[in-house]
Amino acid sequence: MNYILTTQCADGVGLIAKITNLCFKHNLNITRNNEFVDREGSRFFMRTELTGEPSEQFLSQLRGQLPEGAQVALHHGEKTKVVLLATKEAHCLGGVLLKQYENAMNIEVLAVIANYRDLEPLVKGFGIPFHCVPHTGLGRVEHDEKMAEVIEQYQPDIVGLAKYMRILSPEFVARFSNQIINIHHSFLPAFIGAKPYHQAFERGVKIIGATAHFVNDELDEGPIIVQDVTQVSHANDADTMAKMGRDIEKTVFCKAIQLASEHKVFINGNKTVVFS
Amino acid sequence: MNYILTTQCADGVGLIAKITNLCFKHNLNITRNNEFVDREGSRFFMRTELTGEPSEQFLSQLRGQLPEGAQVALHHGEKTKVVLLATKEAHCLGGVLLKQYENAMNIEVLAVIANYRDLEPLVKGFGIPFHCVPHTGLGRVEHDEKMAEVIEQYQPDIVGLAKYMRILSPEFVARFSNQIINIHHSFLPAFIGAKPYHQAFERGVKIIGATAHFVNDELDEGPIIVQDVTQVSHANDADTMAKMGRDIEKTVFCKAIQLASEHKVFINGNKTVVFS
Amino acid sequence: MNYILTTQCADGVGLIAKITNLCFKHNLNITRNNEFVDREGSRFFMRTELTGEPSEQFLSQLRGQLPEGAQVALHHGEKTKVVLLATKEAHCLGGVLLKQYENAMNIEVLAVIANYRDLEPLVKGFGIPFHCVPHTGLGRVEHDEKMAEVIEQYQPDIVGLAKYMRILSPEFVARFSNQIINIHHSFLPAFIGAKPYHQAFERGVKIIGATAHFVNDELDEGPIIVQDVTQVSHANDADTMAKMGRDIEKTVFCKAIQLASEHKVFINGNKTVVFS
Amino acid sequence: MNYILTTQCADGVGLIAKITNLCFKHNLNITRNNEFVDREGSRFFMRTELTGEPSEQFLSQLRGQLPEGAQVALHHGEKTKVVLLATKEAHCLGGVLLKQYENAMNIEVLAVIANYRDLEPLVKGFGIPFHCVPHTGLGRVEHDEKMAEVIEQYQPDIVGLAKYMRILSPEFVARFSNQIINIHHSFLPAFIGAKPYHQAFERGVKIIGATAHFVNDELDEGPIIVQDVTQVSHANDADTMAKMGRDIEKTVFCKAIQLASEHKVFINGNKTVVFS
Repeated sequence: MNYILTTQCADGVGLIAKITNLCFKHNLNITRNNEFVDREGSRFFMRTELTGEPSEQFLSQLRGQLPEGAQVALHHGEKTKVVLLATKEAHCLGGVLLKQYENAMNIEVLAVIANYRDLEPLVKGFGIPFHCVPHTGLGRVEHDEKMAEVIEQYQPDIVGLAKYMRILSPEFVARFSNQIINIHHSFLPAFIGAKPYHQAFERGVKIIGATAHFVNDELDEGPIIVQDVTQVSHANDADTMAKMGRDIEKTVFCKAIQLASEHKVFINGNKTVVFS
Repeated sequence: MNYILTTQCADGVGLIAKITNLCFKHNLNITRNNEFVDREGSRFFMRTELTGEPSEQFLSQLRGQLPEGAQVALHHGEKTKVVLLATKEAHCLGGVLLKQYENAMNIEVLAVIANYRDLEPLVKGFGIPFHCVPHTGLGRVEHDEKMAEVIEQYQPDIVGLAKYMRILSPEFVARFSNQIINIHHSFLPAFIGAKPYHQAFERGVKIIGATAHFVNDELDEGPIIVQDVTQVSHANDADTMAKMGRDIEKTVFCKAIQLASEHKVFINGNKTVVFS
Repeated sequence: MNYILTTQCADGVGLIAKITNLCFKHNLNITRNNEFVDREGSRFFMRTELTGEPSEQFLSQLRGQLPEGAQVALHHGEKTKVVLLATKEAHCLGGVLLKQYENAMNIEVLAVIANYRDLEPLVKGFGIPFHCVPHTGLGRVEHDEKMAEVIEQYQPDIVGLAKYMRILSPEFVARFSNQIINIHHSFLPAFIGAKPYHQAFERGVKIIGATAHFVNDELDEGPIIVQDVTQVSHANDADTMAKMGRDIEKTVFCKAIQLASEHKVFINGNKTVVFS
Repeated sequence: MNYILTTQCADGVGLIAKITNLCFKHNLNITRNNEFVDREGSRFFMRTELTGEPSEQFLSQLRGQLPEGAQVALHHGEKTKVVLLATKEAHCLGGVLLKQYENAMNIEVLAVIANYRDLEPLVKGFGIPFHCVPHTGLGRVEHDEKMAEVIEQYQPDIVGLAKYMRILSPEFVARFSNQIINIHHSFLPAFIGAKPYHQAFERGVKIIGATAHFVNDELDEGPIIVQDVTQVSHANDADTMAKMGRDIEKTVFCKAIQLASEHKVFINGNKTVVFS
């Protein structure tokens, strides 16, 4: 059987030896391994692909050998559970749904929740539950509360903001801490804020991009997971840039969901460690 | 004979027809043509590659048919004259010198001027005059004045700042208006200002880049000519990013000099038109 | 009103002047223009974006000024009609359907025809007619004939082979001459033939790619429209390469359909001219 | 002190544990680690960055724990010794010399050997010994023998063929087995053989590329280290493609030399393992 072991803890001497030894003793064969030590923060990160049959004691023994507070997890090919939030734009949402349909990602999109009904036919076409939670007449906290209730029915691993065009309340962000992945339509930190393609056009840049990041309380400031860019020219106006940008947004958002679903992304303060 | 005709003027009806007609009447065969109309600014830009033998009247007749204030020029394969300014870093300077040596660019580097002597052996190895104009003990305007005097001996078309690590006085910028090309070590407008690679590392970005731009009075705000980026990861510290960045800086700076030398770059307010 | 004029003819002197003059006389304003002259083949290609109101005589007058046999067409924003052929793989097919749904391409997919039923739910989810024409028990020519009959009901501009895994008969190719766009899963001419990802893995290449091309009678030899690649490593086995490759295939196929739908692609013997 | 440990051997159970344990016992701290197991060939590859002070017994103890025939090496920041062979083209040669000058690579180019004198000024400008070994009047084996004698004076780690335009004799290849890195001007296996840019132009491809590979007895068939590509268009003739290609060749060749100098490249039959 194939397993993925993820480890995150305070750095220390001989951690790789300890972990790989324990695998060896449990007859677990390491087929792929990635480690990273953040020296500044003194944190250790490791992702290990294993074959074999880990006993019940493996994880507890592992914890016993690692520094206090170590986060370890053993994954066994189960699909990552995803709920997607959207508004009216189809490209990031459809990108993920299509990838799931193609079996290109080991995810299960449990539901799509939107504040408008525009995307309902697309979602239902893929055979996935669609919920509309309109925001009209509701304050932000109140609307977020209603969204959260629907989300929590599904107990997802990841909440993907597939161009969900609303600013989230701190309460919502705290409720799904380290689970929310957003797509931002610029290569952050360039063009923070509204209308980045108009900003890009005004500035006359020759590249535009997109950023997938975890959401925390600072708008557009969460840990970055994936970025990508494309070349633009003087002949591209803001609308054309927006259209070109949607392709990058789709690619970058799908890539971030995929990396997270493969347990390749670790949050490290305001940054990520990504074993791609 | 091969010629390049560049035209820039207020937009109007039938400009392409007028220009191509005149070429036709003068037995000039158009082998390649690029046009762009900036609708917002109502400006017309055109670059035309021609074969034939333009008569003395061609340019004056052309001006007669174009709106008042049109800028037209006819280039005939002459090398673009370049003076490069540098400090201590070799990569952008060496990149251009090597490209010239390879005959990969139709330029002639007339001289290199630096405020330190470190790069003298490299420059002399390529058989190019090297001038050192130290800044120690001089105010900015005074030092710029001395630099300008050396530059003006050479009457260059382009003044390339090959990692010239000094801020230029408005007087200097005005003196070589629209001629100064700088390389900035970030994908502007991200990480304006000092230590962009440290800023990039702190923010945890997944791409870094470089920007070649014309210099005007606003620091890091001049018209952008070329940008490019490269992927980085959590494993790259600020120094590694700086090292990776130097490759992009070299590529981007060389590309900007090359495009300018091929008369493919037009300044359009705070932007450029680049027919690449 | 906005128009796109496409011109293809034997090269001659003053063609641009003639065309742009006629536009000028008809009060058609050129907003964007691309030309190319193939010197070896002595062919002239031009794509012109126009605003204005062309009279009925415009095209006939234009033909009168161009060399015998000139191909000219005037497009007015109508959607390009596409029929897609598929087998069992969803990625290229779904990629185009999603792009259409997003309004990212000015196309109308009239129908999808496949030799299996696997993709029917996906296609119907997008509200598009699906036809299954099984090949079992039929010879190639016979099956192709049945496919062609279904296709011809729709009178498409483009027949897109979205991973249609059958070799086409010369009769079929001739019937839809210059209309069939295929996606091949390698950067041609590398790895012509079967199992390109296995070939790539065996050779130990560091890049893999995909190619969209027009289909002619020579298998994998038709005019190339778009190619793109991605980096691979020693750690990627043939199956992983195939999975990574599907992303490139989707991108490249969509891009080719898009370029064709925007009248930016001209066939020039065994090559293409692409004004991108 | 910083060390790089490279290990290559037959695969077996617990190899990572054995190696990392031994490091732990010797107070060597692992700061970065890469492993790869080739399942088909049952080979194990590992590159480990260490800090600490390895005792004299470390390597022999390590060998004692690894399968018979294991190749292990411990590197301590010493510069990789390089001899470059060239003919008349400056770009790949100059690219490496400039990188060395910039301190961008941890290499020492001990000498350049060419069969013409054209590149002597460039090489001497960088203060590096230049030898001319003309091939006129000599058979291949005889000329190779003379080249080899000059090379062996310098005892290089790597022999870089910086556009050395001669086919090497099997004797020469055997003499510098696994040490010779060549740059080929196409993305292999496309366009094997002569004039790849003309082949690319004739085929109408939209991407061209370059390949750096180890040289073995099969021409253009050695293990590939690095490949990269660039987009081309219908407007690029074979000469322009060649010019564009030289940029890629320079980049790819420099990258291959750099990776080898950092002990990141392992030969694995007719492929490479590259820990980049």
